[in-house]
Amino acid sequence: MKKPFKYEEVIHKIEEVIERLKLVAGDKVPSVRSVRQELSVSLTTVFQAYSLLEARGIIVSKPKSGYYLSSPIVKPLTRQDESKFIALPTQVEVNTMATTMMKNAKEHGVINFSILSVANEFLPLAKINKAVQASLKENDNFEYPLVIGHPRLIRQIARHSFEWKNSLHQDNILITNGCMEAINLCLDAVTNRGDTVAVEKPTYHGILQSLESRGLKALEITTDPETGLDLEALQNALNHNSVSACVFQPVCSNPLGCSMPEANKIRLVEILGQRDIPLIEDDSMGELIFGQKRPLPAKAYDSYNNVLYCSSSSKTLVAGFRIGWVSAGKYQSKVEKLKFNSNISTAGILQDSIGRFMESGHYESHLRKMRIALQENLVKYLNSINNYFPDNAKIALPKGGLSLWIELDKSINTIDLQRLALENGIGICPGDIFSASPIFKNYIRLNYCPLWSFKIDKAIQKLGELIKAKVIE
Amino acid sequence: MKKPFKYEEVIHKIEEVIERLKLVAGDKVPSVRSVRQELSVSLTTVFQAYSLLEARGIIVSKPKSGYYLSSPIVKPLTRQDESKFIALPTQVEVNTMATTMMKNAKEHGVINFSILSVANEFLPLAKINKAVQASLKENDNFEYPLVIGHPRLIRQIARHSFEWKNSLHQDNILITNGCMEAINLCLDAVTNRGDTVAVEKPTYHGILQSLESRGLKALEITTDPETGLDLEALQNALNHNSVSACVFQPVCSNPLGCSMPEANKIRLVEILGQRDIPLIEDDSMGELIFGQKRPLPAKAYDSYNNVLYCSSSSKTLVAGFRIGWVSAGKYQSKVEKLKFNSNISTAGILQDSIGRFMESGHYESHLRKMRIALQENLVKYLNSINNYFPDNAKIALPKGGLSLWIELDKSINTIDLQRLALENGIGICPGDIFSASPIFKNYIRLNYCPLWSFKIDKAIQKLGELIKAKVIE
Repeated sequence: MKKPFKYEEVIHKIEEVIERLKLVAGDKVPSVRSVRQELSVSLTTVFQAYSLLEARGIIVSKPKSGYYLSSPIVKPLTRQDESKFIALPTQVEVNTMATTMMKNAKEHGVINFSILSVANEFLPLAKINKAVQASLKENDNFEYPLVIGHPRLIRQIARHSFEWKNSLHQDNILITNGCMEAINLCLDAVTNRGDTVAVEKPTYHGILQSLESRGLKALEITTDPETGLDLEALQNALNHNSVSACVFQPVCSNPLGCSMPEANKIRLVEILGQRDIPLIEDDSMGELIFGQKRPLPAKAYDSYNNVLYCSSSSKTLVAGFRIGWVSAGKYQSKVEKLKFNSNISTAGILQDSIGRFMESGHYESHLRKMRIALQENLVKYLNSINNYFPDNAKIALPKGGLSLWIELDKSINTIDLQRLALENGIGICPGDIFSASPIFKNYIRLNYCPLWSFKIDKAIQKLGELIKAKVIE
Repeated sequence: MKKPFKYEEVIHKIEEVIERLKLVAGDKVPSVRSVRQELSVSLTTVFQAYSLLEARGIIVSKPKSGYYLSSPIVKPLTRQDESKFIALPTQVEVNTMATTMMKNAKEHGVINFSILSVANEFLPLAKINKAVQASLKENDNFEYPLVIGHPRLIRQIARHSFEWKNSLHQDNILITNGCMEAINLCLDAVTNRGDTVAVEKPTYHGILQSLESRGLKALEITTDPETGLDLEALQNALNHNSVSACVFQPVCSNPLGCSMPEANKIRLVEILGQRDIPLIEDDSMGELIFGQKRPLPAKAYDSYNNVLYCSSSSKTLVAGFRIGWVSAGKYQSKVEKLKFNSNISTAGILQDSIGRFMESGHYESHLRKMRIALQENLVKYLNSINNYFPDNAKIALPKGGLSLWIELDKSINTIDLQRLALENGIGICPGDIFSASPIFKNYIRLNYCPLWSFKIDKAIQKLGELIKAKVIE
């Protein structure tokens, strides 16, 4: 492990003090001088840290006075009060809507807040480019790749999990065409048409589309914008329904951006392990936590061999390569067979390139830089939203990930808003596609993965105007 | 269209004369001088042509005497006499066998006659490499590709079909992860678990594996080693069974290497179009015909919009990129939706690279060169087989493709032979995996896509010895 950046240590220290002293908005934070003395670091390093905290919206500087804890810039979203109801399986129907939306958003000139595609500015493209160059020199990469995947990438994925309690084993990793293929192979391995699958409410629309196309029913489990999946609601639902599998995103969920506390993840693995209900874990966003180190996925605690762990390099390195992976516990050989019967294997040269990049040692430092850059980007988005959206807009403040889940005035139908926005060259996701039930009609998902710019600010301004006009209607 | 190579015109002329005069083995063929005079070409060109014909095993030179038509070096295979029976749907069970075989054959040091992977020596890897370099310069290629695929590749695939009666339209092409994904998406679009699908007998084991994993039944239609699918047998089978779809390989079938006559393809499209039974056409080998120009696929005659055309660049350019495509007629939008729900889209950078190569104008000349090179390679394989295999081995002489379908002595179980061969570092496919019925127990498929060498000759010799020893057992 590399030593963390010095200015990050400083940030960590200041955050610690803020928490220990229970400072609230408006309170003065420790001075530059005191921090410098206590940690014996250079003035530059301390200023770096303070600037970053300012960019993140955590502190504000007042000229000739010092730094103060800033007031929260968004109204936090709380979950809908509905955990008293027992979840019932629902037929899923979001397919056409989601596909049309994706198609439209890709059109030329549309400012895209709807597709979770990280802007190239956040990615180490030059280094990946170099890795591809090296991969091109190996003739093996032009031949049929192994069904399970390229050994170099498999080795790196295993290595990257070394610190987990239950790390991924080389013999238990299969490379796929992105995380969605991984999840779909898992669904095919553990469910049959007509079965019921538990998902978060709200959940990523791609998961609902997969259930729909497989004729599976969704059992939606209440999910808290802060702490993620509600385990009490889950147990309640499992007691009253026959569930074939769960698809959850314990770390940096999409669209909420929340993460489950460690204890909850451990409990989740136990609840499902004891009932022998397979947990398909979507960890595609797990690396994008705001913090120095990512929280462990549920798989890391999987002593039951019951977690089918799915992830990819689409959100952290390069979406266009379509490289994902799955470690499916006791279902591994079944998943392998399904992969072969689906498309034989995944493009070898791109697997090798991602493997080479991870091998180079730049991966960890890239992730650290990217987490900070995305958080800085988020702060700018939040400022724009705060400036232009109506006062009653509520946001689930993300712990990581790439998206903002925003509740608008009850009177707004966001499917209409989405169409209207698109007419104005702005792509957003209506809340409806993140659930099989019609309870998010006044929600939108707005992704902050395009790099903030004045053009983005203008687009958010326009969006705010459209929303305000809708409320008046 | 480029003008064909001059020596190819000469070859064409000589072949025409052989056919017109109904020459048989041992007859003298037209002299170098007469051909030169008649066509007014250079002596070099004529000699090129004669050398090539000799390499292909069509003629032999006798010193100071001239060229003679050579005797056929293999015993031709005729089809099993069974067309009087009506085909019945069969449960498919080849999955484990085929997957294990693939895994073993990829092991280091195994001489691989079992996986249809064209040797790098036949491929324009340097030019493809260059195309990838160009694709790497476009940042778009790192972002999420469109579900339907990269516009450049789609354009080239459409262009490549311009000469067809019904050419492929840009708006009706979807890029997939190889041809098998294309076929699988089509199967998912037009069948449900428990349905019956008609296939050739024998057919590519990957198709049978797909049926098995989908719980589909196979209705096996007699297929002639010369003329392909037996249309009478097909109609008979359709009259007695409810068939949801057909998966056929009209041009350069695998494993037989046969092609259907034009009239038969036209009739096939009509039979299925009139009955509204979708035809999933596997054209992955169609370009690998021995001849100057490929025969048209059935899709070219599809006035019913009922053919789901599947192909790929795996056999002609580079298998490791996993780039295929589908043009699914009236089922296109259904196939598109299934693609999105399977893995969103296919790696953009590799699509762009294949598109760039096709765009460069080298594609047609590469195909022409590759067809000749493969045929030359085939002749060397046939010679080796002729030298070392028992006298009663019969071969389906291919019209193209990459594989030889060989009937051995009735006493031989080729699953045992396959295991024995693998112990000797040689990978072959047992006939059993090419059918859902146990009628090809004494057949093997031997691919001639590794470049012939003395090492290959030695491996075929060893294989011949193993077969002879088996017969004596």
